[in-house]
Amino acid sequence: MNERGVADLGEFTFECGESIEHLEIAYETYGEYEPADGDRHAGNAVLVCHALTGSQHVARRPERGDGGNDDGSSDTAGQARAWWGDVVGPGKAIDTGEQFVVCANVPGSCYGSSGPPTEGPDGEPWGTDFPPVTVADWTRAQRRLLDHLGVGRLRAVVGGSVGGMNALDWAVQYPDDVDHVAVVAAAPRLDAQCLGLDTVARRAITTDPNWNGGDYYGDDRPDPDDGLAQARRIGHIMYLSKASMDGKFGRRSAGRGHGRESPDPAASFFPYRDVESYLDYNAERFVERFDANAYLYLLRAMDEYDAAAGYESDAAALGAFDGELLCLSFTGDWHFTVGQSEELAEAAREADVPVAHHVVDSDHGHDAFLVEPERVGPPLADFVADGVAGQAVTDTAESSDDGDEFAPVHTSLFGD
Amino acid sequence: MNERGVADLGEFTFECGESIEHLEIAYETYGEYEPADGDRHAGNAVLVCHALTGSQHVARRPERGDGGNDDGSSDTAGQARAWWGDVVGPGKAIDTGEQFVVCANVPGSCYGSSGPPTEGPDGEPWGTDFPPVTVADWTRAQRRLLDHLGVGRLRAVVGGSVGGMNALDWAVQYPDDVDHVAVVAAAPRLDAQCLGLDTVARRAITTDPNWNGGDYYGDDRPDPDDGLAQARRIGHIMYLSKASMDGKFGRRSAGRGHGRESPDPAASFFPYRDVESYLDYNAERFVERFDANAYLYLLRAMDEYDAAAGYESDAAALGAFDGELLCLSFTGDWHFTVGQSEELAEAAREADVPVAHHVVDSDHGHDAFLVEPERVGPPLADFVADGVAGQAVTDTAESSDDGDEFAPVHTSLFGD
Repeated sequence: MNERGVADLGEFTFECGESIEHLEIAYETYGEYEPADGDRHAGNAVLVCHALTGSQHVARRPERGDGGNDDGSSDTAGQARAWWGDVVGPGKAIDTGEQFVVCANVPGSCYGSSGPPTEGPDGEPWGTDFPPVTVADWTRAQRRLLDHLGVGRLRAVVGGSVGGMNALDWAVQYPDDVDHVAVVAAAPRLDAQCLGLDTVARRAITTDPNWNGGDYYGDDRPDPDDGLAQARRIGHIMYLSKASMDGKFGRRSAGRGHGRESPDPAASFFPYRDVESYLDYNAERFVERFDANAYLYLLRAMDEYDAAAGYESDAAALGAFDGELLCLSFTGDWHFTVGQSEELAEAAREADVPVAHHVVDSDHGHDAFLVEPERVGPPLADFVADGVAGQAVTDTAESSDDGDEFAPVHTSLFGD
Repeated sequence: MNERGVADLGEFTFECGESIEHLEIAYETYGEYEPADGDRHAGNAVLVCHALTGSQHVARRPERGDGGNDDGSSDTAGQARAWWGDVVGPGKAIDTGEQFVVCANVPGSCYGSSGPPTEGPDGEPWGTDFPPVTVADWTRAQRRLLDHLGVGRLRAVVGGSVGGMNALDWAVQYPDDVDHVAVVAAAPRLDAQCLGLDTVARRAITTDPNWNGGDYYGDDRPDPDDGLAQARRIGHIMYLSKASMDGKFGRRSAGRGHGRESPDPAASFFPYRDVESYLDYNAERFVERFDANAYLYLLRAMDEYDAAAGYESDAAALGAFDGELLCLSFTGDWHFTVGQSEELAEAAREADVPVAHHVVDSDHGHDAFLVEPERVGPPLADFVADGVAGQAVTDTAESSDDGDEFAPVHTSLFGD
């Protein structure tokens, strides 16, 4: 009942105006689809949107023989593999025994959907000739995929990080198509600090000589691993918090002098610290699974995303949305802050969209949405089932008596 | 009455155990020296310690003809030139009409003191054969320079950022030699988040092929400008705050497509934002004035610094200190936090060192100590004059009734 595939969705015109003849989207589905039945029931289709370096592989696949991989183990290493296996699956918060879950690799990525590393019209990898992608392109590609799969109205769209921006974009682009939108650890747009860090991350790739203008495919050329590793190190720091880094690593040494051959003799007097070891280890694993051009493309899409683009405000962008909105944020997240989620919730209140802003107290930084399933699962489960009235769903507006922890919660400027 | 020079301090053994035959220290002095006179007066010598990429040139030099430079203009661009000209100078908080101010370029740097770019024993630049340096080496080199200049006891040592660590190290290494130590925007040690960012910054340099193991000197070889620029971009983000970056740049575009020849055709659909333009502009100016190896050396010294090294605690390290301590911190600073300054103040209280922790409310991030002279000057002036009893000096212990803004302020475990 779980399926995976690559759909050829035909010609696709990107937001930038460029087209490709065949947009291929790699996807997975979990569970059995029950369509909506007029007003009687909303159907059971849930679209899950992955984060920057995630894939269509959101949940564990217990069955063997599905392409040679056995992912039924506890192997959730890397966001490519069962990246939300503790939140999505049989008996999990998004229960694939009840819901029909679809997850698709976004265009521009490197897990089977059309993107820089896939074959272009000349038989060579696209590289940087692949059209620039935006979050809006991802949403439109998902809509096309769902049409292809025969899925109409969605019970829910759920996404974390830039996947949360993707989910939010559903409420703006397809306001009649989805009942419940859950925006997890995300924001209507990035702030200047994150834009700055992302631009440094991209520059790390484009200044790696092996990047070679994006043309590094083929066995005879080295990949821009140094640059991509640097970009990923910056990402990992953004995903953690000061508190979580101090807790995980402190100033502990992983041994004096560098563990591996150091290029820098003068460094050998100083310790190779746990924090550097962590960043190196994760960066090295990452370059094995991800494509440098895809990283550039997706990071740019995230930076460019602005919920209010083409509208006067976030509230105006949400004006036509017919469903309910959940903003789920984490106190230790400085990549996507509680304040930004509150701004989004405020906009929804202003637009008379039923909304709850559920704040999770966590030191885990942005990573919390991946590593704290026991806190993420209950509000998500109840929101998908019952909307903002769901039992485990809390809202900042309700708790505003307790103090001014977040941006001030005021009633709509435009009345009730 | 202002002087500049380079002192040959003879053989110097670094903390790492390596020696060099001739340690040269570039320095400047401002004002006339009045030595201490027993207990009757404390002398007027004030040592100012520069930050990571600063120089001996702390104040403006109004006189012309002092080596061909005319720095009497408002040119304070870059930390190399009159980097604290609004805090140190005639009539300023640290008044060179009254105090004798000494500022020295630290060993390992590149403004005239011995370091990687200076000539080694074989007549070639040292490069990475220069001994690794630590903050303790800086302090000992400064003590040697002051001996050379005939300066004994100091009225004050004042430093910001890693210069504040340097100032703090004076209280530990030379506890009888200084009356007032002002630690501005600094901490007893860096936290894991900053260590992580610094390691990425260093890796940017050492993965630049032009770095060439540190051997890039000479006109026939390119400098590792890309790597050093990347390191500096990361630094600039650390020196600003989320609020200051949103205020300065927001998401504004400096024009669609990159202002300069972009190496990346697929980027041209996206805006070149103000934040990227700022980081690029400053990085490009920085690589003209700073040496990549020196940046590696000084960043490592900062990362390695730990006030409690060799002691059981910060309080134990301060146990012999005979003078008074000012911790000056800034609410928007996430590089060196208010909490870290409070920890240091707590340690001083525990060690019965007279201390004041003066917190400046500022959105300017770590840069505040450079860009808010009107808030930095008054407490510094009064502290240098009158110690912690100085009129403009406030202390968190006094204001602890107002709420629990900082780490809890409790009385010493060992006190009365």
